[in-house]
Amino acid sequence: MTTRPLRADARRNIDAILEAATATLARDPDASVNDIARAAGVGRVTLYGHFENRAALVSAVVERAMADVDAVLQALDLSGDPAAALVRLVDATWAVTLRYGALVVAAERSLPAAEVAAAHGAPRERAQWLIDRGRAEGRFRTDLPASWLVTSLHTVTHAAANSVYDGELATDAAAHAIAATMLGLLTPPGEVVPDVAALTAH
Amino acid sequence: MTTRPLRADARRNIDAILEAATATLARDPDASVNDIARAAGVGRVTLYGHFENRAALVSAVVERAMADVDAVLQALDLSGDPAAALVRLVDATWAVTLRYGALVVAAERSLPAAEVAAAHGAPRERAQWLIDRGRAEGRFRTDLPASWLVTSLHTVTHAAANSVYDGELATDAAAHAIAATMLGLLTPPGEVVPDVAALTAH
Repeated sequence: MTTRPLRADARRNIDAILEAATATLARDPDASVNDIARAAGVGRVTLYGHFENRAALVSAVVERAMADVDAVLQALDLSGDPAAALVRLVDATWAVTLRYGALVVAAERSLPAAEVAAAHGAPRERAQWLIDRGRAEGRFRTDLPASWLVTSLHTVTHAAANSVYDGELATDAAAHAIAATMLGLLTPPGEVVPDVAALTAH
Repeated sequence: MTTRPLRADARRNIDAILEAATATLARDPDASVNDIARAAGVGRVTLYGHFENRAALVSAVVERAMADVDAVLQALDLSGDPAAALVRLVDATWAVTLRYGALVVAAERSLPAAEVAAAHGAPRERAQWLIDRGRAEGRFRTDLPASWLVTSLHTVTHAAANSVYDGELATDAAAHAIAATMLGLLTPPGEVVPDVAALTAH
């Protein structure tokens, strides 16, 4: 990256490349740099002038997508019953994840796991805050580390995105599956697992 | 791969390479082909004569490890209460996973997700069988697809292996965390989440 301000046409090229890369990877997680350059209407040389390699491009696309995810989730009301708030968080997270289609698959295939995890800093903090509140109020289990429960939430959401991509899970069944899975996973031993429908009907 | 029978020294080289690759990747998931050749006491050329590239070598190591995992799990008694049987399955799976250290991490970094999933065919079928039985007996939830529950079990186990590698989860806490997480995840809505300790104490 240069420290000089980017010329307007360079900025436009970068935006076009990121936009095209997002759309192309959402359809085909194995799309090549050539596919992306073609979709962006720029040459390979121009693309490589801005992004050193395919992983750097995927990384920039993921960073941009996560900023969008974060903006959507920031607007959510997570007050009230922690279990009902978790269902709202899962629904909203899934709706915004859907915009990006197979990008989750592309990220996991192209980037080191630690980098994928690091890109999820803000959503992870939000989930952690809600899980901590649910634990403090006795609604969520405290017999396992909070960080493990947050990791499970992240992992289950990504597994759902992969299962939808593989055709194993219907797109419109995924949000319910994630929420139902997470409520079971978070319920303290000795307590009754809540029903997702009962929490959302009001 | 040649169709002629391998000469005894070629067979010995392959065994030495697979043994060294397993031990090396268990310690360092990013170990290079050079590191592995050195540990096996063979030259790079010999190694590449048997394995086309690093991914092919990792793939062969994973296949061999999964055969070992399967042999251990085949000996398990999975009769009786499905929830208690699940705890035994998780404990045994985790104990054998531990033998392979960071190999899970290496596999996920080096191989396409579909290939990692395909390598788990036999353990996945065993988990599917137990989950189906638990569903038929009313012990496990039937409001989510069985394949999704099996995927969750696989995903949570791999997340635990990664969390132990990252130092987020203590090695000796992982089997309990996976079992407790899975029992919560499998409990039908409206039912009480069982306690792992209560299931194993007798």
